[in-house]
Amino acid sequence: MDRLFNFSAGPGTLPASVLEEARDEMLAYKDAGASVIEISHRSPQYTELVEQARGHFRDLLGIGDEWKILFLQGGASLQFYQTALNFLGEGQVGDYVVTGAWAKKAMAEAKLVGETNEAASSAETGHDHTPDPSTWQVSDRSAYVHITSNNTIFGTQFANDPDPGVPMICDASSDFLSRPINMDRYGLIYAGAQKNIGPAGVAVVLVRQDFLDRIPEGLPTLLDYRTHAAKLFHTPPVFAVYMVEKVLRWIKSGGDLAAMKRRNDEKAALLYDRIDATDFYRGHARTNSRSNMNVTFNLPTEELEAAFVAEAKTHGLVALKGHRSVGGIRASIYNACPREGVEALASFMADFEASNG
Amino acid sequence: MDRLFNFSAGPGTLPASVLEEARDEMLAYKDAGASVIEISHRSPQYTELVEQARGHFRDLLGIGDEWKILFLQGGASLQFYQTALNFLGEGQVGDYVVTGAWAKKAMAEAKLVGETNEAASSAETGHDHTPDPSTWQVSDRSAYVHITSNNTIFGTQFANDPDPGVPMICDASSDFLSRPINMDRYGLIYAGAQKNIGPAGVAVVLVRQDFLDRIPEGLPTLLDYRTHAAKLFHTPPVFAVYMVEKVLRWIKSGGDLAAMKRRNDEKAALLYDRIDATDFYRGHARTNSRSNMNVTFNLPTEELEAAFVAEAKTHGLVALKGHRSVGGIRASIYNACPREGVEALASFMADFEASNG
Repeated sequence: MDRLFNFSAGPGTLPASVLEEARDEMLAYKDAGASVIEISHRSPQYTELVEQARGHFRDLLGIGDEWKILFLQGGASLQFYQTALNFLGEGQVGDYVVTGAWAKKAMAEAKLVGETNEAASSAETGHDHTPDPSTWQVSDRSAYVHITSNNTIFGTQFANDPDPGVPMICDASSDFLSRPINMDRYGLIYAGAQKNIGPAGVAVVLVRQDFLDRIPEGLPTLLDYRTHAAKLFHTPPVFAVYMVEKVLRWIKSGGDLAAMKRRNDEKAALLYDRIDATDFYRGHARTNSRSNMNVTFNLPTEELEAAFVAEAKTHGLVALKGHRSVGGIRASIYNACPREGVEALASFMADFEASNG
Repeated sequence: MDRLFNFSAGPGTLPASVLEEARDEMLAYKDAGASVIEISHRSPQYTELVEQARGHFRDLLGIGDEWKILFLQGGASLQFYQTALNFLGEGQVGDYVVTGAWAKKAMAEAKLVGETNEAASSAETGHDHTPDPSTWQVSDRSAYVHITSNNTIFGTQFANDPDPGVPMICDASSDFLSRPINMDRYGLIYAGAQKNIGPAGVAVVLVRQDFLDRIPEGLPTLLDYRTHAAKLFHTPPVFAVYMVEKVLRWIKSGGDLAAMKRRNDEKAALLYDRIDATDFYRGHARTNSRSNMNVTFNLPTEELEAAFVAEAKTHGLVALKGHRSVGGIRASIYNACPREGVEALASFMADFEASNG
């Protein structure tokens, strides 16, 4: 079976070279005499690889020891609750910018912990944009402002790191390490790995030391970020961390995050140029909120959309169906989605339009 | 690099045939045109494999739809808190049988939720046994009795499923599917996969429907078992579940759980017979509480123990050092630890004693 061009929204495509390495090491990792998934998480081999992974994050993001780098379980969905549990103090307000389904879920979990405020929302226009930070209504008792940097379902993305005047907590699951980040704006950034930086099974959490100092006593041990910042507390999701290390090494082999952004912008432009060329394809996102990770669009009819997905598949272009909640087409073109795949899709879009437009 | 005989306490050895399958499928899984870790968790391929995994559990344990089978993240350590959060109701008492470090941690997390009672403990004698259920002091307001079926660090194990008269919650992380289980005694069984049934990164939770019905409203979404029993709520740890399916298929290929127990008892006997033969090796566990998963013993001096570990390594027998909290030697001989490895270890023990005894 050959590999196809896979536009899955997540879990998403991984670099083939990373998969090849994992394949070659599956029976015996380095000098361990066993697979990496069969050895102790306190072994020198695992300790080395997790420290290498942390080093890659520090190198790529230009951060030092003031940022703790945690490899947690439960995905971004558990982070919705955990961030509020740790940082939404009594008398404070958690501010949420609701740019889609995930942001809404994050706010709902925070409500179980304390007071929340919808600082901005794009719901009224079908989440077709990311609200301008100058319009946000941030509480004067704000503990943090929570944003979703990229919205997988709707295909929108903040063009830059907003500056609301209080530290932000960011769900960066779907665009993490796809471009540089102004880390000064954030107190905590979390990302499920399965889109840009690895397989499912680990959420990477970057948290600043001064944010950790705000955590109250008495939290469940596993849900207190300090537990994981202090030491390797329990068995980590070894395989997922092992793969993240490889993916980050692959990212670094292509240069810095500015170089990654250039490649991602170029890939996205191939599709947006096609969308903008005629009225056949209609992009969901407003131009200034377009995501370079998830390109979402509609065709004139649902029948044509179904035909598009089916015919694309016969050309080896798979997983293009939009999220079940909104329909349409979604091409997820994360870091590891090769340019050739995006070129093939753009070319297919032109051909499909010529035949059906 | 050859594969060594690996006695790691967890993550532990996996069947070589399972690793070979994973290796061969790493670039392209079945007809997906991508690795299993690159495709949607709502794809037909993942849906099929997770249902196959559930089917294996049902077949091996002889259970029907009254048991929900969940694949959760956060390991057994998060289950310590989550079980109490869901099932330790107001006015009730969580009863804990403290047979070691993990049981103690489980009780500590439950204290954050409600009232607990130490129904029995083996602490006074260095956790060298599992307390006889006839001696347990179970509260008359008991919500459940929590046990740890096998104690990795101390090498003790309950010989049978206890019957305390109220439903048990069991941490079966280190002996799950190593022998038959009398499921009627339990309301919930959880197990981190990384010892007997797969790699790290997934905790398997089996929970009975009537137990689910006791869960109160208002819990964090991800920590409410009903969230996961109802549907696939969020991205699961795909690779870990994929590997669990393969390991369970491998278990079934060797027969039922009674056959697995026979093989495990025989492997353990090879080591215990060696320990009992002279006074050179001293087993930590009382005879009637001996684990057939983790065989723990001491040598006459710490120097001899260090020499034992070092010399064993030169014979390809690795990860034999006891847990850092207790020292000594620990041979973890989970399901997938091959009999030849245990025979090699028993033989090495005899040789080492002959040279040093």
